Amino acid sequence: MADSRFFSNAGPFSIEQLAEMTGAKATGADVAHRSFLDVCPLDQASATDVSFLDNNKYKSDFLKSAAGLCIVRPEFAATAPDGMALLLTADPYTAYALVASAFYPATYRDAMISPRATIQATAKIGENCSIAPGVHIAAQVVIGDNCVIGANTDISQGCEIGSGAMIGSNVSIQCSRIGRSVIVHPGARIGQDGFGFAPGAQGHRKVPQLGRVLIGNDVEIGANTTIDRGTGPDTRIGDGTKIDNLVQIGHNVEIGQHCFIVAHVGISGSTKIGNFTMIGGQVGIAGHLQIGSGVKIAAQSGLMRDVGDGQTVGGSPAQPMKVWLREIAMVQKMAKKKR
Amino acid sequence: MADSRFFSNAGPFSIEQLAEMTGAKATGADVAHRSFLDVCPLDQASATDVSFLDNNKYKSDFLKSAAGLCIVRPEFAATAPDGMALLLTADPYTAYALVASAFYPATYRDAMISPRATIQATAKIGENCSIAPGVHIAAQVVIGDNCVIGANTDISQGCEIGSGAMIGSNVSIQCSRIGRSVIVHPGARIGQDGFGFAPGAQGHRKVPQLGRVLIGNDVEIGANTTIDRGTGPDTRIGDGTKIDNLVQIGHNVEIGQHCFIVAHVGISGSTKIGNFTMIGGQVGIAGHLQIGSGVKIAAQSGLMRDVGDGQTVGGSPAQPMKVWLREIAMVQKMAKKKR
Amino acid sequence: MADSRFFSNAGPFSIEQLAEMTGAKATGADVAHRSFLDVCPLDQASATDVSFLDNNKYKSDFLKSAAGLCIVRPEFAATAPDGMALLLTADPYTAYALVASAFYPATYRDAMISPRATIQATAKIGENCSIAPGVHIAAQVVIGDNCVIGANTDISQGCEIGSGAMIGSNVSIQCSRIGRSVIVHPGARIGQDGFGFAPGAQGHRKVPQLGRVLIGNDVEIGANTTIDRGTGPDTRIGDGTKIDNLVQIGHNVEIGQHCFIVAHVGISGSTKIGNFTMIGGQVGIAGHLQIGSGVKIAAQSGLMRDVGDGQTVGGSPAQPMKVWLREIAMVQKMAKKKR
Repeated sequence: MADSRFFSNAGPFSIEQLAEMTGAKATGADVAHRSFLDVCPLDQASATDVSFLDNNKYKSDFLKSAAGLCIVRPEFAATAPDGMALLLTADPYTAYALVASAFYPATYRDAMISPRATIQATAKIGENCSIAPGVHIAAQVVIGDNCVIGANTDISQGCEIGSGAMIGSNVSIQCSRIGRSVIVHPGARIGQDGFGFAPGAQGHRKVPQLGRVLIGNDVEIGANTTIDRGTGPDTRIGDGTKIDNLVQIGHNVEIGQHCFIVAHVGISGSTKIGNFTMIGGQVGIAGHLQIGSGVKIAAQSGLMRDVGDGQTVGGSPAQPMKVWLREIAMVQKMAKKKR
Repeated sequence: MADSRFFSNAGPFSIEQLAEMTGAKATGADVAHRSFLDVCPLDQASATDVSFLDNNKYKSDFLKSAAGLCIVRPEFAATAPDGMALLLTADPYTAYALVASAFYPATYRDAMISPRATIQATAKIGENCSIAPGVHIAAQVVIGDNCVIGANTDISQGCEIGSGAMIGSNVSIQCSRIGRSVIVHPGARIGQDGFGFAPGAQGHRKVPQLGRVLIGNDVEIGANTTIDRGTGPDTRIGDGTKIDNLVQIGHNVEIGQHCFIVAHVGISGSTKIGNFTMIGGQVGIAGHLQIGSGVKIAAQSGLMRDVGDGQTVGGSPAQPMKVWLREIAMVQKMAKKKR
Repeated sequence: MADSRFFSNAGPFSIEQLAEMTGAKATGADVAHRSFLDVCPLDQASATDVSFLDNNKYKSDFLKSAAGLCIVRPEFAATAPDGMALLLTADPYTAYALVASAFYPATYRDAMISPRATIQATAKIGENCSIAPGVHIAAQVVIGDNCVIGANTDISQGCEIGSGAMIGSNVSIQCSRIGRSVIVHPGARIGQDGFGFAPGAQGHRKVPQLGRVLIGNDVEIGANTTIDRGTGPDTRIGDGTKIDNLVQIGHNVEIGQHCFIVAHVGISGSTKIGNFTMIGGQVGIAGHLQIGSGVKIAAQSGLMRDVGDGQTVGGSPAQPMKVWLREIAMVQKMAKKKR
């Protein structure tokens, strides 16, 4: 059971309701008459809980789980423990996401603008916003409806933030236009100067950073992640792209739609990335590269060349995944022999 | 001499006092009658300073040091410079830590709750706390006695923080229960959403993150480090574990007691780590792994498999340290030959 | 055209003025009578814009650019599009930096100390400073003239900051002395405890961190970067060094003048680095090393040994660049053969 100090449970739900919201097929003993109070991991669940099996690593937990209802792929139906009802679907994780969101809808704080927020007179704040103490909203900022802004966040002059944004505490936003339904976690830094200097033997001269950060809709930006604004061109993040914590995105980078970018990734200036590309943790990407759509990049890879659509790469310097794995296997085998 | 604008010196101490607090054996000329005003590195110390030698890299500094008293292992006694008194111990670094803590006890700010902190009516604040301007403490938060909370830190609804916490400025804490005597450095982010999405061809669906962060006693968390809350299970950090700056800890990760985790480490979701494990800088650990107790992981390693108790590993992908070093040596040798 | 909500344009400028401020040689049709309204990238520029070509990757943009004026090396003069005037110089990027700074001089906010900043009575604030809401300036802090301090930044007791500093929002500074004309981006953490513990089987003992952070003039420090103070010796950053986002600098590290340190670099305790050294993204440097001046370190390298002046190194563990590249090529070739 989620801790009620932090989360509010909107259950119970009947199997019928759960089947309808997920499009999954209900099956198992006594399906019609049961209802459920909560979601819970397989190994801790009881008869009133809904659980799910997506990653096969947790199959043994499934086989001995006491969960009353489990969301699984159809092939697992035969091995379900006695007394467990099932919701069968090809995509249990998405179905679980829907169910968990039904039990725990995003809690909306009361719309309330703290008298301890500082909002300049020329800023425009939409309807039904919650703005916490210590927030600073500068001149000419425009904030859409139904936004939540956490304590001590700073939004600099002229920024625009679309409706439905959830901005965490202690965030800094400058020179940016941000779309609808964006989530920005605490401590993210958006729109500061890129790292641009004309090097010189007497010292390095700062190059003015005259672009912006343009962020689409439904983007999520992790805690303490940094996104620099462009030098003249803009830095762009496409709709639906999800960025984890502590990621660095350099000036003029363009990232397409629905990408995943895992923690500690660094993307150097002016690199362009397509749609639905997945970048593993701690990957580094050099500047001025073209990375295609549907690319998968293994964790800790280092990219120094362009990568075409649909490729999977790994290693530093990165190579096609098969080539990289073959080289690792070869070196390991040779070292064993020589021993 | 530590800069008196930042640190208050509680000296002098006699050798007798220093020997007693460390359990070390005092030796050398005129031991009984000398006292010391400060701690100081070997290469800058004078006759009234206490210094120490722990890392052999600094032995040459020891041989020519003017320190009045030096904490060393017994085997260095014979080579000490003339006129230097000694404190002999098998563990000079711990002895130095005790001595330095005696000269510079943690300065406690006056207990004082700033009128510019915003504390919701249902929050409970312990005795003798210091709460700086701009702090936001939400409803139902419970803070123990003798805590210090730095400027502009945000503590969200329902969090619990044990007694003796030192929380730096600009920290964000959500959905967390934190033990006694914990130190959290500035800009750390604790308890935000983990990076959980059910991927889809039309876009990725956010999975509610319904767990907490549970942190034990005597834990230290570095500046700008991020610790995500669990998805349903909790993220856990055991007693005495020390985490450096800019570390990322994913949802559902469980870390045991007394581990060291150096800067820029990334630990992916649901990985479990034992006790007294040491993780070097910039290490990446994949999700859903079991890493044992007493494990040592070389800097920049990439772990994709479980690691048993007591192993030392290195490389990306990581291997037993000896195997990794042998492979490096082999490749270096072959490349030299071919040249 | 830079977005006028964020940037104020001080143009137009005549070619004559631009030639004078850069020392470049003006050439091309109608040079004497043209003037320019803005700077713009080659691929978006029009007849009233100034652009530049520095990185040969963008030569094709140059060949078809509609920019009215382009700053280039003399060897490109012959291939310029018809109607484009030129400013010829050996260093187009520095010349562009000067031109862009003329069009967009650093905007200085009105000198104004917010009544919502908390400034202790014994702090000294210079002339003509701008201090935003939520800033906390502790006792005995000294701030020079013409400084800008962003919202919710915390400056702890006794710190000194030289004139002309631009400090972003949500920054934390402790135990530090900072020179003139320093830029600190949002969320940087300067002067917190280093990661120092005497390890023990019963737990690890915290070692007091009794040093400071000393930062020279004209230093730039990136967003969410962390710089720990020394243990007794100080952590030092020399004049003109530029540090990107999310960098970790450990206690007692000494960095010389005019270095570049790219994002996600981690430098472990007590390492010393010379002048004009360039450190690529995600590099890790072990503790207690000596890295010379004029060293170049490839991205993602791992340094475990000293590096002499002027060397170029790469790989993990790092080697001279040529050796590293030769080893990579050898392994790739062998794996191809074996296949």
